[in-house]
Amino acid sequence: MLTLYSYWRSSAAYRVRIALNLKGLAYKQVPVHLVRDGGQQHAPEYLKLNPQGLVPLLVDTGNGGAEARIAQSLAILEYLDEVFPVPALLPGDPAQRAQVRALALHIACDIHPLNNLRVLQYLTAELGVADAAKEAWYRHWVETGLAALEQGLARLPGRLSLGQRPGYLEACLIPQVYNARRFNCDLKPYPRILDVVARCENLDAFRNAAPEQQPDAE
Amino acid sequence: MLTLYSYWRSSAAYRVRIALNLKGLAYKQVPVHLVRDGGQQHAPEYLKLNPQGLVPLLVDTGNGGAEARIAQSLAILEYLDEVFPVPALLPGDPAQRAQVRALALHIACDIHPLNNLRVLQYLTAELGVADAAKEAWYRHWVETGLAALEQGLARLPGRLSLGQRPGYLEACLIPQVYNARRFNCDLKPYPRILDVVARCENLDAFRNAAPEQQPDAE
Repeated sequence: MLTLYSYWRSSAAYRVRIALNLKGLAYKQVPVHLVRDGGQQHAPEYLKLNPQGLVPLLVDTGNGGAEARIAQSLAILEYLDEVFPVPALLPGDPAQRAQVRALALHIACDIHPLNNLRVLQYLTAELGVADAAKEAWYRHWVETGLAALEQGLARLPGRLSLGQRPGYLEACLIPQVYNARRFNCDLKPYPRILDVVARCENLDAFRNAAPEQQPDAE
Repeated sequence: MLTLYSYWRSSAAYRVRIALNLKGLAYKQVPVHLVRDGGQQHAPEYLKLNPQGLVPLLVDTGNGGAEARIAQSLAILEYLDEVFPVPALLPGDPAQRAQVRALALHIACDIHPLNNLRVLQYLTAELGVADAAKEAWYRHWVETGLAALEQGLARLPGRLSLGQRPGYLEACLIPQVYNARRFNCDLKPYPRILDVVARCENLDAFRNAAPEQQPDAE
């Protein structure tokens, strides 16, 4: 059985929900509220499961009896692709796999970490950054990152990372675009990104993974 | 032939140098100076190779004639493990692979991106953050991250991520510790991390990858 510890608005959890849906895997969702109670991800019971104190966490009890507890969204995506290989999230060729992973890691390492909740909270609480400057910070990293991603997408052999089919890359890109829209970033300069979004957003795997569709949505 | 575009002090490039050395792979190194000329990673010739405008970049011309250009250190590590599988950087079992990747991603997504050069430059130039507050920012993310990592290491079956042998995780951890020491972070609260460091730092693969040993070291 698969259990996902998730928060509706966490874009890292959103990535994993998309991947589980793309593979048609049933899972139970346990909400972890990142703001309430000072952040439920810091509660001792949760830290016992995931000492990183972040969502998502996937728990797999179907793996021959042993319980696998996996933190970090991209580690979860890799695990799912290894344990439930069909349909694949990554292409088969090593150079193409690397190209897809590099674009996904650009989102996961060079855009998202700078803009997640705990960082925005630090800017306000510890550095006294005003709202306008915080929003400029947000847009700076999103726009720098998406501009590079737009160039990177041009090098993919198809319109989506698996040719006609979305996978690992789109599971990272759609949540990032969701965040960018939430913070009013201008996406018009990125037609390839908008084309990927248009091809994905009406698919059930993506629709059912959207923040507003989750049981803990507010 | 393998060519690595690298900067001596980039800890992402340092990860790749360790991985190449652990696999005993010969490579040519091309320095990209991240400060000089306004940052050589932004030069048009480099952006043609890597539109992400970051180091490292690995170029592999040995892959049946086609040239593979791979950005993002962790995508490079995965590629190397797929194309040159012996000796492996990751364990064989999917749950153990996931555990190792999750710890490495904790470094690559939740510690390092907050403290890299371009972010520190933004804090100073755009937000007017004073040096003391910038150093506190640096230490906050390193210490929060390493504390979680210390707990995570306790769950590995061996002292190193491949039992007696370092791999993917150590290729990420040793550069992060190098940075932490450079910024005078107190590492005494992390005895497991210090034990991993002690087991790795005198191995040739790590020694020869160290920033000070690189051709562009200053």
